[in-house]
Amino acid sequence: MSDCIFCKIIDGSIPSTKVYEDDHVLAFMDVSPLTKGHTLLIPKQHVKDIFEMPEDVARNLYAVAPKIAGAIKSAFNPVGMNTLNNNGAFAGQTVFHYHLHFIPRYDETDGLKMKWETKQSEFTFDVLGTVAEKIKENLNA
Amino acid sequence: MSDCIFCKIIDGSIPSTKVYEDDHVLAFMDVSPLTKGHTLLIPKQHVKDIFEMPEDVARNLYAVAPKIAGAIKSAFNPVGMNTLNNNGAFAGQTVFHYHLHFIPRYDETDGLKMKWETKQSEFTFDVLGTVAEKIKENLNA
Repeated sequence: MSDCIFCKIIDGSIPSTKVYEDDHVLAFMDVSPLTKGHTLLIPKQHVKDIFEMPEDVARNLYAVAPKIAGAIKSAFNPVGMNTLNNNGAFAGQTVFHYHLHFIPRYDETDGLKMKWETKQSEFTFDVLGTVAEKIKENLNA
Repeated sequence: MSDCIFCKIIDGSIPSTKVYEDDHVLAFMDVSPLTKGHTLLIPKQHVKDIFEMPEDVARNLYAVAPKIAGAIKSAFNPVGMNTLNNNGAFAGQTVFHYHLHFIPRYDETDGLKMKWETKQSEFTFDVLGTVAEKIKENLNA
């Protein structure tokens, strides 16, 4: 897409620091890293988000995810790693070309802060059953 | 693995609310959901984390990710969605069988709070180049 910054990184008209490339995907350093080694993996085919991603694009993208994660781990020896994909502005998406963040984790100074507040008391096993049914109904819709 | 709670969910000895299953993967509701529709996708093969995941397992897992994400979206009409995989206790992993979270997002009452503090000033384009080189060296290590 002509006005997409990640498509311009793919075609080389915007510079980037690449770590991996094949026919289907490109991996490069996030220019606003949260930690050392924060990498992005994107499909070469322009898709806005996970909802628009065809099955074969998803397959070819994630095939290399363990390899990228492993290389970041070997390079910098983090204690953990989050892989994260944001879809929609409210979920934190700022570039509307699907991308998967690899965020190695080291210590409390990491730029990624996450807080999980479970809603377990609200979602009993029976309620979860109803929620699951609704998702199942929409699987082949 | 005999003492793995997710392996027991796969073999049916622990009950779960399933939304999708094929030869390679299982998707079911997280029992400690952060939002309505919070779903987990796991490979049937026991792998601890993304670092242990063989390429074909990764390929078959993510092939169904857009379908799962789309069904959750159609079911509950969230404004966004995070897909998140935690590796290592410090990164938030609590069950040591790889799992991908699908967390639909609605509003400020969501149980997932994320804060991004960029380290952009520390990582100039030149520094990122050095970081990328180190990752590349480890890609086929």
